Amino acid sequence: MEKRVGVLGGGQLGRMLVEAANLLEIQVNFLDAPKSSAKQVSNHDGHVDGSFKDAEAIKNLTAKSDVVTVEIEHVDTYMLEEISKIVDVQPSWQTIRMIQDKFAQKEHLQKYGVAVAQSVALKEASIEELESAGKTVGLPLMLKSRKEAYDGRGNFPVKTKDDFKSALEALGSNRDLYAEKWANFSLELAVMVVKTKDDVFSFPTVETIHENSICKLVYAPARGVSDSINKQAQELARKAVSCFQGKGVFGVEMFLLPDDTLLINEIAPRPHNSGHYTIEACPVSQYEAHLRAILDLPLHQEDLELREPAIMLNILGGDSPNSHHAFAREALKHRRTKIHLYGKGQAKKGRKMGHITVCAPTMPEAEQLIQPMIEFADKDKPSSTTTTKPTQPNEQPQVAVIMGSDSDLPILLPGLAILSRFHIPYTTRITSAHRTPSVMASFASSASSQGIKVIIAAAGGAAHLPGMTAAYTSLPVIGVPVKPTVGDGMDSLLSICNMPKGVPVATVGVNNAVNGALLAARILGAGDVGVRRRVEGYIRESEEEVKGKDGRLVEMGAEGYAEKFLGKK
Amino acid sequence: MEKRVGVLGGGQLGRMLVEAANLLEIQVNFLDAPKSSAKQVSNHDGHVDGSFKDAEAIKNLTAKSDVVTVEIEHVDTYMLEEISKIVDVQPSWQTIRMIQDKFAQKEHLQKYGVAVAQSVALKEASIEELESAGKTVGLPLMLKSRKEAYDGRGNFPVKTKDDFKSALEALGSNRDLYAEKWANFSLELAVMVVKTKDDVFSFPTVETIHENSICKLVYAPARGVSDSINKQAQELARKAVSCFQGKGVFGVEMFLLPDDTLLINEIAPRPHNSGHYTIEACPVSQYEAHLRAILDLPLHQEDLELREPAIMLNILGGDSPNSHHAFAREALKHRRTKIHLYGKGQAKKGRKMGHITVCAPTMPEAEQLIQPMIEFADKDKPSSTTTTKPTQPNEQPQVAVIMGSDSDLPILLPGLAILSRFHIPYTTRITSAHRTPSVMASFASSASSQGIKVIIAAAGGAAHLPGMTAAYTSLPVIGVPVKPTVGDGMDSLLSICNMPKGVPVATVGVNNAVNGALLAARILGAGDVGVRRRVEGYIRESEEEVKGKDGRLVEMGAEGYAEKFLGKK
Repeated sequence: MEKRVGVLGGGQLGRMLVEAANLLEIQVNFLDAPKSSAKQVSNHDGHVDGSFKDAEAIKNLTAKSDVVTVEIEHVDTYMLEEISKIVDVQPSWQTIRMIQDKFAQKEHLQKYGVAVAQSVALKEASIEELESAGKTVGLPLMLKSRKEAYDGRGNFPVKTKDDFKSALEALGSNRDLYAEKWANFSLELAVMVVKTKDDVFSFPTVETIHENSICKLVYAPARGVSDSINKQAQELARKAVSCFQGKGVFGVEMFLLPDDTLLINEIAPRPHNSGHYTIEACPVSQYEAHLRAILDLPLHQEDLELREPAIMLNILGGDSPNSHHAFAREALKHRRTKIHLYGKGQAKKGRKMGHITVCAPTMPEAEQLIQPMIEFADKDKPSSTTTTKPTQPNEQPQVAVIMGSDSDLPILLPGLAILSRFHIPYTTRITSAHRTPSVMASFASSASSQGIKVIIAAAGGAAHLPGMTAAYTSLPVIGVPVKPTVGDGMDSLLSICNMPKGVPVATVGVNNAVNGALLAARILGAGDVGVRRRVEGYIRESEEEVKGKDGRLVEMGAEGYAEKFLGKK
Repeated sequence: MEKRVGVLGGGQLGRMLVEAANLLEIQVNFLDAPKSSAKQVSNHDGHVDGSFKDAEAIKNLTAKSDVVTVEIEHVDTYMLEEISKIVDVQPSWQTIRMIQDKFAQKEHLQKYGVAVAQSVALKEASIEELESAGKTVGLPLMLKSRKEAYDGRGNFPVKTKDDFKSALEALGSNRDLYAEKWANFSLELAVMVVKTKDDVFSFPTVETIHENSICKLVYAPARGVSDSINKQAQELARKAVSCFQGKGVFGVEMFLLPDDTLLINEIAPRPHNSGHYTIEACPVSQYEAHLRAILDLPLHQEDLELREPAIMLNILGGDSPNSHHAFAREALKHRRTKIHLYGKGQAKKGRKMGHITVCAPTMPEAEQLIQPMIEFADKDKPSSTTTTKPTQPNEQPQVAVIMGSDSDLPILLPGLAILSRFHIPYTTRITSAHRTPSVMASFASSASSQGIKVIIAAAGGAAHLPGMTAAYTSLPVIGVPVKPTVGDGMDSLLSICNMPKGVPVATVGVNNAVNGALLAARILGAGDVGVRRRVEGYIRESEEEVKGKDGRLVEMGAEGYAEKFLGKK
């Protein structure tokens, strides 16, 4: 392709950017040290050796490039402003300057009505100023450096007044500081947003897990987040990025608070660690999306959707210089595990040396596959510093079996036995359409985002549970009519089966939980070869069983058979 | 990683190989011209400039490498034999020498009991020898050069005796030739096989479509191929590769004959055009698998399984030197389309300049997405030279809607409209449990292998069709009870719903084909995001519709509403 891209910085983000560019024959010129990570996978004469802080080198890069972009926001935006007169700079220098200063970034977002944590700038790094800020945002608070802060450096948690002095000492007296209201978040979420010349697109909402303020794990999609929160997160991220000028991808980190509100934490004007998973998990990666955005090449929202759930785990440098290779060798032993090493040479403790991504048809499978590598990463850690948020149990249920009353449970047991036999993980819940209507509604609405694929609902009499559940979800719902104490169960059957047009329930016979479970297995079998094989095995066994009975009937005659097997003379 | 890999040749296969190697920090040294395709994405001092046919250059490469491999089989195997004394050569020089000579390759396979087309070597390139060969293998036959043949070069179809002279002239008198029995294949299939030190693994069976003897399209998995043929193809491919020494990936091309037997066409001892799709479609690509195999790194069969159906389309050079860029710019406009350009500079007519891969949740979707690019590739072609084997219709049915009698069809129409609205391809059939029992049995038994995912069966009265269909398949069957002329349809409903334990039918309300179709959509939605989104859209619309009615009812009052919308005073 014709246009050449110049990049300030040639680390791992640049490396993954040029891996995408190589596929499109886009020339990318890096300004960085001679054997830097990105230059190792890009062999041409357009690179510039030197520091991305050096004015002369930047001019040299500019002369060779049609569009200049950054892989790090800590650049000299005054130089960017100058070169923007002769070359296209994306995103704009104004955006990078604004985002560099985290306090200015937050003020800017607030001006546009984007939810951010309450923040107060300190006029100087003094106890008095900090005290005054504490009165505004309350204690505890997070004291932050306005600039040059990343991976947790430049943050200091201030719990009480006793921390004032050590906080100011830790962050240094010659830095501009601000105090941020403490966010007692329940989850950290992130969304990669792509700003093109005409549109603002977004990748899925992911869950990020930090350890010692460094990103450790990314779950795509975020686990246990309702559709409504997911939608809010997407909208908030797009709204936040819309406040800035220029094109390219932006990493938007946010907090989900216990009351389900969302706050922007911070924004990066470039590809981001929380978007590495997109390389394998989406049709177009964050890197290719950045190139397409800054070069005005076409892009579609669908290109940013998940192909499969994915989990990314960072490879951080350990104690030995080859610790990342030891990690990679271990990772190679595991299935579906894609390794990305960054070519940074010898490992330094805590430095990002690479990452792995596991994609699988379901999140529980991905969790199961990556678990040994999380343990490997944690093996040398003192047991106190475990992951801030433990991963969910491996066997996440695929079927939810719900009943209006515990009196329905005995009827369901043979069906549950079928699910166990087919190795289908399930959960059982008591939730009544009439006695706990809101619990039922909330359960049904969130079932899909919890990884449930099929719901089996049992009910008797007026039997509203299956139909009401179907009304709150787009999952297939199987209704098992339960015979009530009075009557033959026809009331249950018709209540479940005769749903209005638009809201289907797959109804089976009265008390026939076995068929309900087999139907769930047939439905799951469409996407799961293992289940399909087990259904086929069951069908073959049933056939053999009936053939066996027939053989014995022929052999023994009707009377003998009835006497021996049916206890009838 | 410690071991360095040396590669004879640095074209596109080498380029994609080193793209995989870069992620693992494996140094790959290429022997080829200075700016060759592979060297462009690998920047270090280990490369050797020169020809892979030059002995001195090969020795130079050997000195810098721990394992030497090839990206093309037309190398000097005597040099490989020599360097194998000092460096590990994979796959072995014996294997490459054997495979280079296509006739020797076939004789070798035959010796091990692997099915290949009958072939006769010509002692010399003479009419007499060709005539004698024709007596053995029959006419028409394919006259082939034993060596240096690829992409159709070195093949000449001999239809009658009149072609003898032109065939010999075309292939040249100083080449070793052989005659091969004409294979009137119904499909060309290919399997990439990975030979490790301990195992022989295989990627999925794919369908290849050639045009002018050059690979044009690859469909993964092969379309319309039964489970049994697929299994045979996998076994044949693994068996064939097991006959050769050494480690690495092998491309196995085969013919599927009309009587469902399989024959090996030829084997390539290296990554292959028919395996490019693995980059996006499998957890581990053929390139990474090759590296893992030759370096004794772990690998798992599951790593080679399909994540999603995929279609690959080659980008061949056109009339202008930038034709491949024009192709790429067009491809960028399409969703889910991954572009790979090879960095080969100016296009030459018919040369492989790159490829695109489209992955989608289902093959029909992938077919639909790539169709415009197939048309773009074909746009300048005279209409006579169409694809040798036309692609199958895009819309392979996912739902079969069956009825016992055409009198059920009017009831089903609203359900069919729902399927169309959700873009779910379906087929409708009349098959009666009572009047055509064997047709019904055969249809139901083979539905799954035909790609059907869900069956909707409508019946009235005794209404045996849904239950009998369920008895012959492991697919989910949805039963739509049809109200007969006499009675309220309760007979139909109970006949369908009250199935014995073991054979479930998902029953909906009487005449409620809409709910049957919606249920099918919810079931398909589990594995197909597109369908899921459309189901969710439908639910939202229904909600809006009812809210709209409610709004009008509030506004107009009950009487006004009834008069205006229900025609009642």
